[in-house]
Amino acid sequence: MKKIAVEPKSGRFESLEAAVVAGGGIIASIEEADALVWADPAVPHELPSVLERARAVEWVALPFAGIEPYVPYLDTERLWTCAKGVYAAPVAEHVLALGLAGLRGLATFTRATSWPAQQGTNLIGGKVVVFGAGGITASLLGLLEPFGCHVTVVRRTATPVAGAHRTVALADRLEVLGDADLVVLALALTDETRGVIGPAELEAMAPHAWLVNVARGGHVQTDALTAALADGAIGGAALDVTDPEPLPDGHPLWTEPRAIITPHVGNTHEMGIPLLAAHIEGNVRRFIAGDVLDGHVDPAAGY
Amino acid sequence: MKKIAVEPKSGRFESLEAAVVAGGGIIASIEEADALVWADPAVPHELPSVLERARAVEWVALPFAGIEPYVPYLDTERLWTCAKGVYAAPVAEHVLALGLAGLRGLATFTRATSWPAQQGTNLIGGKVVVFGAGGITASLLGLLEPFGCHVTVVRRTATPVAGAHRTVALADRLEVLGDADLVVLALALTDETRGVIGPAELEAMAPHAWLVNVARGGHVQTDALTAALADGAIGGAALDVTDPEPLPDGHPLWTEPRAIITPHVGNTHEMGIPLLAAHIEGNVRRFIAGDVLDGHVDPAAGY
Repeated sequence: MKKIAVEPKSGRFESLEAAVVAGGGIIASIEEADALVWADPAVPHELPSVLERARAVEWVALPFAGIEPYVPYLDTERLWTCAKGVYAAPVAEHVLALGLAGLRGLATFTRATSWPAQQGTNLIGGKVVVFGAGGITASLLGLLEPFGCHVTVVRRTATPVAGAHRTVALADRLEVLGDADLVVLALALTDETRGVIGPAELEAMAPHAWLVNVARGGHVQTDALTAALADGAIGGAALDVTDPEPLPDGHPLWTEPRAIITPHVGNTHEMGIPLLAAHIEGNVRRFIAGDVLDGHVDPAAGY
Repeated sequence: MKKIAVEPKSGRFESLEAAVVAGGGIIASIEEADALVWADPAVPHELPSVLERARAVEWVALPFAGIEPYVPYLDTERLWTCAKGVYAAPVAEHVLALGLAGLRGLATFTRATSWPAQQGTNLIGGKVVVFGAGGITASLLGLLEPFGCHVTVVRRTATPVAGAHRTVALADRLEVLGDADLVVLALALTDETRGVIGPAELEAMAPHAWLVNVARGGHVQTDALTAALADGAIGGAALDVTDPEPLPDGHPLWTEPRAIITPHVGNTHEMGIPLLAAHIEGNVRRFIAGDVLDGHVDPAAGY
């Protein structure tokens, strides 16, 4: 049996204690515990004083994907895990929600007040181009698997991505965009990727294709997109992130029939709690069984 | 090599000839052909005169799922196939599009003209109750597989459905509805299932749950649903079929913030053509290889 402390008694404390119990662990004080599940991402500075009271803690579970505030406290005597990858799944689900909504005419249908004409394109058997090769893309490839889509990943270099049918370098993006029914932005915002979707990329896209952005608003040149939508140059755009963000009142995208705007809800706080709990439950089960833990942190690398 | 005739020279003739060639078949006249792909669902009565000219046809491929008009012409000397199950996939995709749209707030977001408050529930890890155990449900179970949902199927009898976590009889529906994040109607309309969603069923549903109907409008008691939505008794309803259908101008569902109406687009004519072509291509490949064909028809049973 393994004794596990959940500290501090704030944050997501209750759902994480339940997750520890569900995983087979016994809730214990930090003094007696074999492991510590850190419950409140808002108070990293309290971690050292809690760990000082620990006598047998072999494993510390951190609740966030990015653990920058905890890096000063990492050590090599214990195992450290974080929730990397855990929050990618809801964002990938939002990509699918937005992509299906776009291709199947929901931008038009949801605003109709009279029986509208039929429209719609299947995603099943379609062609998808995804920018980015991180956790969101990995989750999305899993969700897309039963759709039998042909998936191209665009990333900085052309190093192949597992599960994709084709991987091309960012510099070659214009060569693959014309092929897509759905173009998804799920990449990091860097100097190299800022404004990566501009007039040339929009012109390369097929007239029925939808653009979905769940990355950062700055990836898309908003004025070029607004013009392309007004011209009917692409099927439409579904944006969970915008530039500027929030999109100001009166912006033409609010009334553009080919646009869907969602308020940065790929992963909301409420969506994250059960996912974090499932991650902790699984890791508690692995800790008890002596298996390798998910989300292992390398203290030297700091991630 | 196998010679295949595509007749008559109307209907979906061109895309089906291309599918035969893609599957490795050689296009031939009906007199020389080893198989016949029937291209025009509108003219079943022309089939006998075409078959009279056939000398070596071992297999006849019919283009529809329901083959009632062809039943008088079936024989036991040849293999007969139809497109059963082929058109279920787009409808299942529409279920997912509508379910995700509902749970993730798109009914609200698509109508906003100012940055809205966050909302949304994950389908990943959620609970789904599906009425019906036919082709649409089978396809939907496949699409839902990577979501890790707990799926309950409600059908006439409680005979277990492959891929579902639980199967219950229609008479016990009130016992499982309260559990669902998403309730899907994908069943046949019979005297037993007409109005199957009424005041008691809507009251049993969770306040955040969405109802998706891709079956027939008559499954839902429209007035009860309209009242439940106005009261906020359920999360919302996404209807691809309505009663009456089309939904008349001025109906309160057109302006109900918790409703999404789509104009019977689960499977449009345009969506069906490539799916039928893929079905024919696959069966031509199997015919050449001597494998069992998809969509086998039992001439005695007539389906």
